[in-house]
Amino acid sequence: MSRPIGIFDSGLGGLTVVRAIRRRLPAESIVYFGDTARVPYGIKSGQTIARFAAEDCDFLCRFDPKLIVVACNTASAAAIPTLRERFPQPITGVIEPGARVAVRQCGGRPIGVIGTEATISSGAYRRAIQRDMPGAWLVEKACPLLVPLVEEGRPPRDRIVRAALQEYLGPLREAGVGSIVLGCTHYPLLKEEIAEVVGPDVTLVDSAEAVAAEVALLLEAERLLAAAGTGTMRFFVSDNPDRFRKVGCRFLGEEIGAVTLVPPEEFFPGSAVTPNRAQEAP
Amino acid sequence: MSRPIGIFDSGLGGLTVVRAIRRRLPAESIVYFGDTARVPYGIKSGQTIARFAAEDCDFLCRFDPKLIVVACNTASAAAIPTLRERFPQPITGVIEPGARVAVRQCGGRPIGVIGTEATISSGAYRRAIQRDMPGAWLVEKACPLLVPLVEEGRPPRDRIVRAALQEYLGPLREAGVGSIVLGCTHYPLLKEEIAEVVGPDVTLVDSAEAVAAEVALLLEAERLLAAAGTGTMRFFVSDNPDRFRKVGCRFLGEEIGAVTLVPPEEFFPGSAVTPNRAQEAP
Repeated sequence: MSRPIGIFDSGLGGLTVVRAIRRRLPAESIVYFGDTARVPYGIKSGQTIARFAAEDCDFLCRFDPKLIVVACNTASAAAIPTLRERFPQPITGVIEPGARVAVRQCGGRPIGVIGTEATISSGAYRRAIQRDMPGAWLVEKACPLLVPLVEEGRPPRDRIVRAALQEYLGPLREAGVGSIVLGCTHYPLLKEEIAEVVGPDVTLVDSAEAVAAEVALLLEAERLLAAAGTGTMRFFVSDNPDRFRKVGCRFLGEEIGAVTLVPPEEFFPGSAVTPNRAQEAP
Repeated sequence: MSRPIGIFDSGLGGLTVVRAIRRRLPAESIVYFGDTARVPYGIKSGQTIARFAAEDCDFLCRFDPKLIVVACNTASAAAIPTLRERFPQPITGVIEPGARVAVRQCGGRPIGVIGTEATISSGAYRRAIQRDMPGAWLVEKACPLLVPLVEEGRPPRDRIVRAALQEYLGPLREAGVGSIVLGCTHYPLLKEEIAEVVGPDVTLVDSAEAVAAEVALLLEAERLLAAAGTGTMRFFVSDNPDRFRKVGCRFLGEEIGAVTLVPPEEFFPGSAVTPNRAQEAP
């Protein structure tokens, strides 16, 4: 049996990346870890995020993954160099693939980037885009409401979603951007609403799809592609598997079967051994 | 010197409780802990929240507090019985004081309760209100967008805030509630906007103020009130002290001086000792 692809995120947003990889590489098996006990990473410091991400990878390494995908923009921005130093597998984040596509598709116009507070203030997209295209004109905008809006599962044509998008995307429209990076794994669920607000002549770069393309290239180059067939998917979380299963299916685009809870004392070895263990019993 | 009051929250919302206690009992010294590395608690499971809350209290106990305030609705709903079993100090949550005031002020009409997903689904307000007033008619509504809206610091008369409140409060208005419990420590910052939406004949119960009144009664009954003078305030967080200081002053109603970062390995003894410590250096 082929080794799996390991994928982690702070929560369930990374499931849009799983969906994109699944669509492009159906033979690959996937192990997913969602750090739902500590979600969201987006308002935490860079050092803390790097530590959390290393712990997430430690967990995935129990499954001997052939490649690790950091399916979380915040962790990609803060932790990739640390992770590459520490883990031997190829490691792909979601920033660089999306940045490359945005540069290719901007049509000589400015490039828009939207994401969480932490992703935008990290400057990671700016650096990645300017590496590919020195002197690129960027318009970046933090959109802190979009993640809770998506998780709440608001209906299509919701007026609060519309109002938030009009406000956040205003500066990008005024600057006449040619492409917009959806710099958060939650945002593909708002793709149609975003397209309606910015109009048809702006290319929306879904970083989940960009990552899936990158993963396919990497596995091919390393001769690690799985043989034909259908791969398995396994899901692990550090808290609240019920919510993950219930909310996550909108992100994955299909029902989620079993979700395994990884108790904190197993996840961070040596931690959380409180004197009174009774309260942790199910 | 008098022993301090220990106060904790998952993040900075509990600062509205600090503000209310400070206004009512200016001679008291306060030690505040915000668990900003693991915020928010509102989407986590009850067992995880109870464990986090016990760790937060363990930290506060280093300062020998005479009383502990659980300034977090989610933790009050999930953890108070566990904490009372485990810690000798008197422990006050934010649920019961607010529930009592709501019952007193409903004027025979239904009682509204708004809060996070976790607070509402815990049923803690329902139980507390029905203990005081068996057969009370409640209208409860989870409002997941309000915390991010408050933290974003939107200007007065913001149209997204207005739209969210109109939607969330609609069922409460239709039921003709007489009082509404602001069942989240963030909500006092939206008090004026909420009042505009529900109108002047609905009493808004600010649980921060209800808790401050309860704390005053408790300290008086136990003869633990501080002598005259002005107490000190000390602030500790598990992550991101800069954001706490910057965003927190709106909650506290005054500038926040020093904020001390409590590194995870100190906060949860024995945990988070990762092989590669370099990444945690400042």
